[in-house]
Amino acid sequence: MISYAEALEKILSEVRNYPSELIPLSQSLGRVLSEEVSADRDYPPFHRSAMDGFAIASKDYKDGQVYPYHRELPAGMSLDLEPKEKAIRIMTGAPVPLGFDLVIKIEDAYLTETDGQKQVTFNLKDAKPWQNIAKQGEDVKKNQIVLTKGIQIGTSEFSLLASLGKETVSVIQSPKVHIISTGNEVIPIHSSPLPYQIRDSNSYTITSILSKYKIQPESVTHVPDLEKEITEQIQKGLDADILILSGGVSMGSLDLVPSILQRLGVDLIFHKTAIKPGKPIWFGKRKNTIVFGMPGNPFSVQTCSRIFLEPFLRKSYGQSQIPSYKLPYSTTKQKKGSLTEFFPVRLETTDKTYLAPLAFNGSGDVRAGLFSDGLAIIPSQLSQIQKEDILEFLPW
Amino acid sequence: MISYAEALEKILSEVRNYPSELIPLSQSLGRVLSEEVSADRDYPPFHRSAMDGFAIASKDYKDGQVYPYHRELPAGMSLDLEPKEKAIRIMTGAPVPLGFDLVIKIEDAYLTETDGQKQVTFNLKDAKPWQNIAKQGEDVKKNQIVLTKGIQIGTSEFSLLASLGKETVSVIQSPKVHIISTGNEVIPIHSSPLPYQIRDSNSYTITSILSKYKIQPESVTHVPDLEKEITEQIQKGLDADILILSGGVSMGSLDLVPSILQRLGVDLIFHKTAIKPGKPIWFGKRKNTIVFGMPGNPFSVQTCSRIFLEPFLRKSYGQSQIPSYKLPYSTTKQKKGSLTEFFPVRLETTDKTYLAPLAFNGSGDVRAGLFSDGLAIIPSQLSQIQKEDILEFLPW
Repeated sequence: MISYAEALEKILSEVRNYPSELIPLSQSLGRVLSEEVSADRDYPPFHRSAMDGFAIASKDYKDGQVYPYHRELPAGMSLDLEPKEKAIRIMTGAPVPLGFDLVIKIEDAYLTETDGQKQVTFNLKDAKPWQNIAKQGEDVKKNQIVLTKGIQIGTSEFSLLASLGKETVSVIQSPKVHIISTGNEVIPIHSSPLPYQIRDSNSYTITSILSKYKIQPESVTHVPDLEKEITEQIQKGLDADILILSGGVSMGSLDLVPSILQRLGVDLIFHKTAIKPGKPIWFGKRKNTIVFGMPGNPFSVQTCSRIFLEPFLRKSYGQSQIPSYKLPYSTTKQKKGSLTEFFPVRLETTDKTYLAPLAFNGSGDVRAGLFSDGLAIIPSQLSQIQKEDILEFLPW
Repeated sequence: MISYAEALEKILSEVRNYPSELIPLSQSLGRVLSEEVSADRDYPPFHRSAMDGFAIASKDYKDGQVYPYHRELPAGMSLDLEPKEKAIRIMTGAPVPLGFDLVIKIEDAYLTETDGQKQVTFNLKDAKPWQNIAKQGEDVKKNQIVLTKGIQIGTSEFSLLASLGKETVSVIQSPKVHIISTGNEVIPIHSSPLPYQIRDSNSYTITSILSKYKIQPESVTHVPDLEKEITEQIQKGLDADILILSGGVSMGSLDLVPSILQRLGVDLIFHKTAIKPGKPIWFGKRKNTIVFGMPGNPFSVQTCSRIFLEPFLRKSYGQSQIPSYKLPYSTTKQKKGSLTEFFPVRLETTDKTYLAPLAFNGSGDVRAGLFSDGLAIIPSQLSQIQKEDILEFLPW
């Protein structure tokens, strides 16, 4: 049985390149850029006053000097200095006129008026050039690349793209995804279960994970453990870029998925990996279609989606992986066996931030992920975790 | 000038209760529950086999004993034991028949057949009752409350609600929000800026933050710094639950927003708070309308949205606040002045996870939030941060 690291490596070596599409910026939140974006001009585009106050030339500055002034420059306008003009009133966001290089904030200014002539003196010990001015190009230079392919558009990217005037952006097209839940015991959520039946939550888990990447599954189907019906659905599902199955991949006599997949020409890449939960996972491909055969238990699906499906999507999108963190564990924990173990934790902050366990009855537990912030990992070779031991943490 | 803590307290004491609406579960991701949800039955609903293997009675177990068997129980069915039936083949997810209380996994079973009679012996030292069985009700008891009002529906909640058969869920109705950007220097993103103009990114920042709560703004407008036009737009905007302005709240002579708001009968709750960035923020209300007057700089808007708007929304929704974390800082930092300072950081993991600074030229910096994971806080009274000092961290 291959290790977690080997399984992940095999999955990541099967990444696909999806084509690009051009969409309006306003619809791009959560999508992943497929173009490099460079600055259309310097940012700031001009020497911008960072304060409401007065602009002057720093070389002329003397403490206590009286500056006559008569003009005021709000943001959204510019002006050329008149001969002998030594100060102007300036507003935040306005361009500092050529010839001036210092803004003194209004709180440090003392305003007077003599015979209709406005005057100002300043209470400022140390006048440094470029004080209270955001210099042209100090944030970003014109033509500088500010965003690269593979960056997911969040608040900061969205705002920056708007600043740059990118009305449309090129993003990775969402892959076509089919989801098939299998299992005789599984019924749709609107049905009343018999005592030994359960409702299909796995397609909801997978749909939720896909929604993080703005992927809408093309179809969501359920089939009982019947050779003919599974075969039919998988056959249909193989026109997708990604086919995600849940259930039917374990050791039971009705675990028909692996044999049907192989009969339909899907090449097995691996079946089973040394992890808990999620051990029975099946992974393969047929031409351009990638097939994830996830186990049927709800927390196995959530775990496999996080540790295998998301990394696959992100690498296919050219996105970096979600970083994992290393944080101290809040208590002690035993691990039996030699599998790499994943369990739900929440972040608990006292003097510092710890990983804290939650009630967890294993992969079949319907509320296993609830109130958790992510998964902690116990490596295969460890059997005992002590309080303050540093564990790897994968945020959801 | 009031402190950050006082400002936040004043904002949180103005929370509103928004009504509920019933929506299909399939559309509920990211929405906030406005009902308590209890379990429709025990989970697991039956003593569920957690393994593919054999079910027997633990009290009868003897190491090396030969068990004849003739029946197989897949998931999705149930069976009653026949008299003298001592073992059945059982699959993961199937209900353990009444009378049996132990499942031995297939890997520990040795199968033989004598004269057409199937038999099994087990390689198991220690047979404990309920081994490899998820007991009925061990995760959740029937009628137990599993989700409460104010919980945002993420992957785990979505999956659990599906398991419980909640086809429709009661969620908080999104408030009606208007966004108004002000500023003569600000132009829409599809326009070509003159040298001293910048494009409106603030409405994109605010829209993105609202989208975390599945709120679509009712309108997004821009007005120049003209008394009449601002007055008109604010007047229209005051029919919202939340009116969010950016720009025009500082000390400049064209910062018209505070006086116009007050003339329109919006009661000032506070203007300015001792933070950086975001100091000039204006907050008030008229009847049921809450008004956030945010400063105009892009990173001020992003910061004020995270530290004031989101807490307001979450408390109005009955949601708990995003927890803040305490993590060591990766290097040293100086702070001038006595404001509480927020700056963008990313999480950097070496031997453990640190908060690491990013290039940051202040609140006007268009790429200030880029590649950051959240905000670190330097409390007002601190002026010097050392490597390894623990700072409070607000994730985005």
